[in-house]
Amino acid sequence: MSDLDEFFCPGSIAVVGASRTPGKAGNTIVRNILEFGFTGDLYPVNPGCEEILGLTSYSSLGELPGPVDLVIGVLPRRQTLGLVSECARIGAGNLIIPAAGFSDVGDEGRALERQVMEAARSAGIRVMGPNSIGTVCTTCGIATPIVTLDRMRPGGVSLFGQTGMLASGFARWIQTSEHFGINKLACLGNKADLDENDLLEYLATDEGTRVIGFYTEGVRDGRRFAAALRAAAEAKPVLVLKSGRTAGGRKAIASHTGALAGSDEVYSGLIEQCGARRVADFEELFDCAKAFEWQPLPAGDGVGIVSITGLGCVLAADTASRYGLLFPAPAPRTVESMRAALPDWVPAANPADIWAAIEARGPQEAYGVVASALADDPWVHSLIAIFTLIPESSLDVMELFGPLAEAHPEKPLAAVLMSGDAAMYAEWKRTLEGNGIPAYHSPERALRALGALRNRSRWKGHTAAH
Amino acid sequence: MSDLDEFFCPGSIAVVGASRTPGKAGNTIVRNILEFGFTGDLYPVNPGCEEILGLTSYSSLGELPGPVDLVIGVLPRRQTLGLVSECARIGAGNLIIPAAGFSDVGDEGRALERQVMEAARSAGIRVMGPNSIGTVCTTCGIATPIVTLDRMRPGGVSLFGQTGMLASGFARWIQTSEHFGINKLACLGNKADLDENDLLEYLATDEGTRVIGFYTEGVRDGRRFAAALRAAAEAKPVLVLKSGRTAGGRKAIASHTGALAGSDEVYSGLIEQCGARRVADFEELFDCAKAFEWQPLPAGDGVGIVSITGLGCVLAADTASRYGLLFPAPAPRTVESMRAALPDWVPAANPADIWAAIEARGPQEAYGVVASALADDPWVHSLIAIFTLIPESSLDVMELFGPLAEAHPEKPLAAVLMSGDAAMYAEWKRTLEGNGIPAYHSPERALRALGALRNRSRWKGHTAAH
Repeated sequence: MSDLDEFFCPGSIAVVGASRTPGKAGNTIVRNILEFGFTGDLYPVNPGCEEILGLTSYSSLGELPGPVDLVIGVLPRRQTLGLVSECARIGAGNLIIPAAGFSDVGDEGRALERQVMEAARSAGIRVMGPNSIGTVCTTCGIATPIVTLDRMRPGGVSLFGQTGMLASGFARWIQTSEHFGINKLACLGNKADLDENDLLEYLATDEGTRVIGFYTEGVRDGRRFAAALRAAAEAKPVLVLKSGRTAGGRKAIASHTGALAGSDEVYSGLIEQCGARRVADFEELFDCAKAFEWQPLPAGDGVGIVSITGLGCVLAADTASRYGLLFPAPAPRTVESMRAALPDWVPAANPADIWAAIEARGPQEAYGVVASALADDPWVHSLIAIFTLIPESSLDVMELFGPLAEAHPEKPLAAVLMSGDAAMYAEWKRTLEGNGIPAYHSPERALRALGALRNRSRWKGHTAAH
Repeated sequence: MSDLDEFFCPGSIAVVGASRTPGKAGNTIVRNILEFGFTGDLYPVNPGCEEILGLTSYSSLGELPGPVDLVIGVLPRRQTLGLVSECARIGAGNLIIPAAGFSDVGDEGRALERQVMEAARSAGIRVMGPNSIGTVCTTCGIATPIVTLDRMRPGGVSLFGQTGMLASGFARWIQTSEHFGINKLACLGNKADLDENDLLEYLATDEGTRVIGFYTEGVRDGRRFAAALRAAAEAKPVLVLKSGRTAGGRKAIASHTGALAGSDEVYSGLIEQCGARRVADFEELFDCAKAFEWQPLPAGDGVGIVSITGLGCVLAADTASRYGLLFPAPAPRTVESMRAALPDWVPAANPADIWAAIEARGPQEAYGVVASALADDPWVHSLIAIFTLIPESSLDVMELFGPLAEAHPEKPLAAVLMSGDAAMYAEWKRTLEGNGIPAYHSPERALRALGALRNRSRWKGHTAAH
């Protein structure tokens, strides 16, 4: 078991190969660490200059004024072996290697990686990479990607995986479009040393991490993986995105990171047995992560749905059973409460189609009355409101969700922004998710996320019989 | 066989129940028809006022100064029967009924609908609805929804279905986010008269319609449906979104539009045999519609992929076989051309991971060289470029796609905007799709759409052996 704290919260960092030139990786890393507000000691290392981004630059690791917890080596792959020796010489125990061209590209690269790792191991140096763009931690204010990254919203979701996209493209997407907060990110690259097992063991007990998600193309040491995954899932929700489902995918994986992808069914069974959730793609990963981060686990299978359109009711009803959810018929008292907003000829049902009520009472009252009636129903354990973003159904959406969340903090809530104006979509999503209400683009996606909460609740033994 | 021209391109329209009050359905319909630039005669009918939105208002259908091709009756359901008699009296042959509360809400409504339809049939009046928000045609400038709709981009895609969402929420979404152009929309509601079969027969030979998509909760007259679907699919691509896949969905459908959903497997088999494509949801419907509208059918199964990230290559490779697509290894000449941008140690493969080439040559040159090499390969029949929207990979995307489309008008192209900044995502999508290059959010969605083109090509017998 390794303690990875120094990869996320080091007291001091050396960036070997730091650069004064904007746009170069060795400049970007220093910029990112400053941008994230790192308060420890940051040492750029470059024999060719004296100052980088306002920091004193050192000519070599040997010149540093103090000990260094984490070294990032922004060097061509051929210089990596020399760097490992230098780290060993000064007693630096943790190294991130961004360079590609190792086991990711064939036999020659594989041989080079083996040499590097032998040297690191004999010196007791832990390595993230090669082919890794490193780590992000919003608690400690560190971000080591080789591409620019703006400071991220802090939160409880930690993500890791082989791909550098997590701390580059997806980090930007989460920040600008998904609205949940990140605690830690790690891009493991070729996983020559640190791998999924290390990260799972570390994050399972990491205080800042409330939800774990990871992307993998295949793991080593299945026994350790199963134990680490189960321990992590006991402690917090774990979402697993595993590629290599088809022969074509497994071939591509071999040439990407050199991993052996393994039998897909074995992975599915293992993930489920360990109490984690396998997700199909990054969309589902983010959809579920925000639901776990913001909403409670439901106490049962019952979902209440209030929708502006019969189409929303049909699509929801058509999907629910796939995710272990059902729509209880409203109790007599619920029907009575719903009737206050519904015209006489409209049945008080669940899913509730409220278009006629919107025409009669306006959207704020129609949604408010029907949603709160359904939320009060004891057989309704979670609630979804479906909107279509047209002027006729505009309302103050937090005036709807705020009281629901206050009255029923134990019931997960979600919104569906099914269609309508794209600008209004972005604005409503920002408002809702800024207040912790996950907003999805279709009833299917909302039910899939609620189904993930329901499954975890079931697995944890919270679900009451009813 | 009915000629539905007068529902889409009438010479004259009467809006019975027209209103001076903004926000009321009877006002909105008149406003929408004016907004879309209708050049025929438009007659508001309301005994209580003399002018509506600058148009002379008439006290009854009997007062109109000329014949009327299409009547829209914005009246409470109880007044519908009277309206039908009045239409019969003046010889108006086509009627849209927006009111709900007929077969969509139970026995009493069903009885009312039966009465209305008996009266209409005996007078030879064709009815769209009840519970229908009517039609849109961008060629003739008509739009009859009861909610406001701004003028839409004209194009070749025609959509219809039971739901009013097509001409309200989804119309706005398509206009602001999906960028393809609409020819006709029709919301069939309860389908007491006009149904999927009528629309398929009409659109199959409609000149303005190049792609047909429809949503259904179940059809009547399976034999006529099969014939109509096959005839339409012979003429143009047809996309079918059918709900009622689960028992829960079928129950919801019965209470929504009263339709019988039928066995789901039977539908799947029938749709495929007729040469149409069954899509899973509205996302896939729009994804495929724009690919058919903008791109040619490929002459084979081979896809070329150029990606900024190995992750994109893996996800694409993992998905392709599901959609009947494959990645041919680059021909020797292709490899030679690719090498001009790739560092020595990076293999020239397909899918092509070009991150190292971007670092070495910049994104414009790296994408340009590798994509055009792959597009020139005779075994590559369609091409996808995968981007992640970060500053480091920014480029002029039409400077990339423009020459590709010009050199290979016979090969479908698509872009994947996999992650990155949300504002940059919206901007790139607008640029690409404004130029007819479909842009998708994941490799999986791009391959699904290309797979739809490939399947149609195969079915049409265009695919050459290779």
